[in-house]
Amino acid sequence: MNKQYAVIGLGRFGGSICLEFQKMGCEVLAIDKDMNRVNEFADIVTQAVQADSTDEKALQSLGIRNFDHVIVGIGEDIQASILTTLLLKEEGVNSVWVKAQNDYHAKVLSKVGADRIIHPERDMGTRVAHLISSNKIIDYIGLSNDHSIIEIEVTDKLINRTILDIDVRANYGCNVIAIKRGNDFKVADIAHFILQKGDRLVLIGLNKNLTQFEKQGV
Amino acid sequence: MNKQYAVIGLGRFGGSICLEFQKMGCEVLAIDKDMNRVNEFADIVTQAVQADSTDEKALQSLGIRNFDHVIVGIGEDIQASILTTLLLKEEGVNSVWVKAQNDYHAKVLSKVGADRIIHPERDMGTRVAHLISSNKIIDYIGLSNDHSIIEIEVTDKLINRTILDIDVRANYGCNVIAIKRGNDFKVADIAHFILQKGDRLVLIGLNKNLTQFEKQGV
Ligand SMILES: Nc1ncnc2c1ncn2[C@@H]1O[C@H](COP(=O)(O)OP(=O)(O)OP(=O)(O)O)[C@@H](O)[C@H]1O
Ligand SMILES: Nc1ncnc2c1ncn2[C@@H]1O[C@H](COP(=O)(O)OP(=O)(O)OP(=O)(O)O)[C@@H](O)[C@H]1O
Ligand SMILES: [Ca+2]
Ligand SMILES: [Ca+2]
Ligand SMILES: [Ca+2]
Ligand SMILES: [Ca+2]
Repeated sequence: MNKQYAVIGLGRFGGSICLEFQKMGCEVLAIDKDMNRVNEFADIVTQAVQADSTDEKALQSLGIRNFDHVIVGIGEDIQASILTTLLLKEEGVNSVWVKAQNDYHAKVLSKVGADRIIHPERDMGTRVAHLISSNKIIDYIGLSNDHSIIEIEVTDKLINRTILDIDVRANYGCNVIAIKRGNDFKVADIAHFILQKGDRLVLIGLNKNLTQFEKQGV
Repeated sequence: MNKQYAVIGLGRFGGSICLEFQKMGCEVLAIDKDMNRVNEFADIVTQAVQADSTDEKALQSLGIRNFDHVIVGIGEDIQASILTTLLLKEEGVNSVWVKAQNDYHAKVLSKVGADRIIHPERDMGTRVAHLISSNKIIDYIGLSNDHSIIEIEVTDKLINRTILDIDVRANYGCNVIAIKRGNDFKVADIAHFILQKGDRLVLIGLNKNLTQFEKQGV
């Protein structure tokens, strides 16, 4: 049976989840206390309703306990976000994912039973700081405390050479996982690709190794 | 010479950029019109000042033209965000990155010269929709319209086998780029790793191939 999804709080985060679910062909119930937001989503998703999610009875009349996953995208009103999460878990919703405003908010959410806590602005801020501070790195994805994936443009140093030839793994301990050429991502058989101007290498590795490659390998 | 960074708008996004720069040892000037936010960052970053970034004279007296990169993290006030961007480019700031509220906002920012436009909540919303709708995928990173990176837990089907043995590349056209064991990311010499319960595979590939692997390979 298809999973049932609901999103409470149709800000940029909650709203974008609704849009993506719709794109993926998944039904979603979009909930907001603000009728303007509800109207905005009424024609976009399966169902959009107005409700205050801190109102236990309102949640119950929506049959929220029947939903497999509920995402809470309430922002400014931290107390409402916390109370909503508490009520959802009390109603027996299996999976409650919640957007957090700050670390205090995240801690309390964890205590009241949030299954996953999300920091969209914080995580993107971290990524932007790394991107901006390197003039070679085009994209940066933090995987863990020590590992990342970076996208870096080939320099004259690497043009006309192959991945095998450069031997990034032996020399820097990073792996080239893809070559981006124009809008194409090449992931298969890249060892013998002859690098061209404009190509981007996508590498995975320990942060210190990636930094070394960025400094010396390109 | 060290690059000069400034962040205007110390919300969750702007604030987190300041914190990450500080962590990376980069100096940053943190700017907000709200004294409370300025005070919050005064002890955290090199310098925090109060200013209304839509005030051309205020920007000039901050010497903003000497900054290499300025990030605009103004949210709700779309007009202020747009005007600030316009003024920064007129002042001659080389690199202006701006957080966008929606597509209209993004379009106008592009027209007034923003060098990079960022959608933290929208991008994370997209990622969450994919994560939540798959019960096998632990993490999902969209690389382009057709390519992604996914993290997926090994099932009984794969335990005690090696990457070479499973031959994900030949069978599904995806590449295993890392194995996550506990908090460790293994990126080197993973072909002969014997997979254990709890291990996670990190794969890169075309979305349709990753979906196939998710459905049939695990
Ligand atoms: N108690 C509530 N019940 C239902 N919806 C609520 C409740 N409280 C707030 N909301 C809704 O949640 C939505 C998002 O909240 P808000 O705008 O404060 O968050 P935000 O952090 O700016 O969001 P984003 O960063 O995703 O844009 C708003 O549309 C608001 O009406
Ligand atoms: N004209 C301005 N000059 C300087 N700072 C400004 C100006 N307008 C807004 N700000 C500041 O920008 C910060 C972020 O704005 P806002 O809270 O509306 O964005 P947000 O979208 O909620 O941010 P985030 O999602 O990053 O938390 C606020 O601290 C606000 O005081
Ligand atoms: Ca808001
Ligand atoms: Ca705000
Ligand atoms: Ca300049
Ligand atoms: Ca936000």
